[in-house]
Amino acid sequence: MSRPPPLRVAIAGLGTVGATVARSLVEDGERLAMRAGRELELVAVSARRRDADRGFALGDVVWWDDAVDMAGHAEFDVLVELIGGSDGTAREVIRAALARGRDVVSANKALLAHHGADLAEQAEQRGCNIGFEAAVAGGIPVIKTLREGLAGDRILRVSGILNGTTNFILTEMRRTGRDFADVLAEAQRLGYAEADPSFDVDGVDAAHKLTLLASLAFGTRPDFTSVHVEGIRNVSAMDMSYATEFGYAIKLLGTASLGPNGLEQRVHPTMVPLDNPLAHVDGAFNAIVAEGAAVGLSFLQGRGAGGAPTSTAVLADLIDLARGRRLPAFARPVDGLERSRAMSIDDHVGCYFLRLMVVDRPGVIADVTAALRDARVSLEAMLQRRRSPGETVPVVLITHETREAELRRALDRIAGLGSVVEPPHVIRVLDPVQAFKKS
Amino acid sequence: MSRPPPLRVAIAGLGTVGATVARSLVEDGERLAMRAGRELELVAVSARRRDADRGFALGDVVWWDDAVDMAGHAEFDVLVELIGGSDGTAREVIRAALARGRDVVSANKALLAHHGADLAEQAEQRGCNIGFEAAVAGGIPVIKTLREGLAGDRILRVSGILNGTTNFILTEMRRTGRDFADVLAEAQRLGYAEADPSFDVDGVDAAHKLTLLASLAFGTRPDFTSVHVEGIRNVSAMDMSYATEFGYAIKLLGTASLGPNGLEQRVHPTMVPLDNPLAHVDGAFNAIVAEGAAVGLSFLQGRGAGGAPTSTAVLADLIDLARGRRLPAFARPVDGLERSRAMSIDDHVGCYFLRLMVVDRPGVIADVTAALRDARVSLEAMLQRRRSPGETVPVVLITHETREAELRRALDRIAGLGSVVEPPHVIRVLDPVQAFKKS
Repeated sequence: MSRPPPLRVAIAGLGTVGATVARSLVEDGERLAMRAGRELELVAVSARRRDADRGFALGDVVWWDDAVDMAGHAEFDVLVELIGGSDGTAREVIRAALARGRDVVSANKALLAHHGADLAEQAEQRGCNIGFEAAVAGGIPVIKTLREGLAGDRILRVSGILNGTTNFILTEMRRTGRDFADVLAEAQRLGYAEADPSFDVDGVDAAHKLTLLASLAFGTRPDFTSVHVEGIRNVSAMDMSYATEFGYAIKLLGTASLGPNGLEQRVHPTMVPLDNPLAHVDGAFNAIVAEGAAVGLSFLQGRGAGGAPTSTAVLADLIDLARGRRLPAFARPVDGLERSRAMSIDDHVGCYFLRLMVVDRPGVIADVTAALRDARVSLEAMLQRRRSPGETVPVVLITHETREAELRRALDRIAGLGSVVEPPHVIRVLDPVQAFKKS
Repeated sequence: MSRPPPLRVAIAGLGTVGATVARSLVEDGERLAMRAGRELELVAVSARRRDADRGFALGDVVWWDDAVDMAGHAEFDVLVELIGGSDGTAREVIRAALARGRDVVSANKALLAHHGADLAEQAEQRGCNIGFEAAVAGGIPVIKTLREGLAGDRILRVSGILNGTTNFILTEMRRTGRDFADVLAEAQRLGYAEADPSFDVDGVDAAHKLTLLASLAFGTRPDFTSVHVEGIRNVSAMDMSYATEFGYAIKLLGTASLGPNGLEQRVHPTMVPLDNPLAHVDGAFNAIVAEGAAVGLSFLQGRGAGGAPTSTAVLADLIDLARGRRLPAFARPVDGLERSRAMSIDDHVGCYFLRLMVVDRPGVIADVTAALRDARVSLEAMLQRRRSPGETVPVVLITHETREAELRRALDRIAGLGSVVEPPHVIRVLDPVQAFKKS
């Protein structure tokens, strides 16, 4: 049986992922060809350091010093963009490849979260594909799951642990009782966190990924700017300890849902009940929960990052292209993507964990609970352990479901009380709908 | 933009799943068309009872009394086979559709486990597709995950909770302490178990599904006949209680791996450590763990059965076909599927939970442990609670890793001891490699 001609692959960016993809193409060709129905041939690469030792021979591959130049002039069928960054070279490289009618595979969540719709439109005009399985949770084929696997269902909500660095930090904080700064420093020493960790710990990376998941889940235009983002810098060892006491793990969760109030997209530390599988996704693992009208809850867990898992996601996209399995980047034509109104976090309805630091004197609790009552916020639980009167003590409260604006109103009043010595610590609780029911 | 013509769908079998698919095609057409890039048009149906009230109007659809007749003569592009059964009508219907060059979507795990390679070959010769996402774990797109999502990786092992009925029974047994027969009767009353439950409780259904997963994971010919199958009839309330005491949940697990000893495929009750996510997959949920050389462990959990989840799997296959996303049924051409040597369960290496019922008199434990020692089976744990001497008491042992043939040799000797009053109860322990590591 005669095979179609090889699919010619050019790679821009030979970091950990790029080098692993290149190596697989060179060394694992026969197996990949069996899956792809034709050869996947690495024909061109571009990276900053030509002389770096990548542990394998690139062979006859043409080296390009300039990635944009390669995208514009090399002979290839698919460009794999692994440069990163939401603008600059990565964007130029992709635009150059699409302009020539070439397909693109990219792991660049920042770029796609910011410019995904524009790039998808350019791809559509040229009849090209953009694959980005590697952009979210490398070891979990979640893009394919939302774009194709659950295409027969109506997705109501998608949420997940989307950033390995913050999950590692939170897991270590929980395990050891240490504080954020301490564990971050260790993560940096181990290479799990960047020297400048802000993209990870401030929730930006998770928000990029959530933007892509939300678009695929709801058929909406990717809308990064409307994501409500809070990172984990303010999660304290004390919060961790109370979380455990109340039966929760604290996770940085991205959640998106589409409802009558519009598109809700939010990334923030979340109290996850210990009977929920998300609570047990530890360390470098990622997980995604999709809630479909018909399928109910689906839970996917796997490695989020690293050269090997992410490279398999790139290869899966290449195999799809080699097989001619094509699809609009966001599952439907760009002009079919809805522009949904962004829901304000003020309209979020949920339960809240509150930790107040108060001076232990008569009447404090009465003042706090009166402020909550006046804002119609009712309480599910409260914990105060007596210390010496006159000293600062923590008071922990868990609210019933309430609208965030109401809660904020109460918290403003509480923050103004003379006995409340720190701004209230607020952590949202996982939506109860996300419990895995037993039958 | 002009759309391609509708994809014309014929459905054979209007049970729960078939009726749900038909209803979606009729009532949810616009959304499906957006995902599929063209209309999915229900043009023909066939079922035993024409007059059944299915809660919606079939409209202009052509009714066929004979499914084989419909497959052979109706005007359609895709035949959806939801009749079930490993032979007979279902097989004839599919063969008739393929013979005419029509694509097929089927939820029929029994048929595909037995005749999958032959049907795939017929499909290949006619350039047709066979989609069977709905055949395994309806609410989890695991077929697509193995066939496409993880196609870039080399899968080492796949295992899972693949049958909802047995998982419901085991979950209830664990929760309530009741015995198998009692819980089975309740499951039958609730409609979770069939009047003749043997396909489920004897592990046959799980073995059918495992056969399909193994083929996709390893690129081997589906080989149902070599699956080692044990059901859950012998799991007792006492085993459940000891499992909990030792930190395990008992699950009916299907496991397949490809190694130097050949293809290992086995379905049997398994002791799953409580720190493994599989231990917490309860009730009607299914779950699959895939272990890839590059991605490590991936864990997928969702609803296994029911009209709604399974119908979305059928729709996802239809959407793929509508988009022209085609692939060999088992991910590679049939002549590329390996015929792997089946590994005998005698060669299985693992840890074992053993429960012996012995007469409590001096020397019994010495005899038992001597038999294990002589077979080079070493022990990790042993538990005997004293009762009155001369009475029958349970003795529970957990072995270190051992080859099953060695263990069986020891057990034969133990079963022959005068003080051992029942055949030994043996439950395999989950392979330790399947632990989700923390980083």
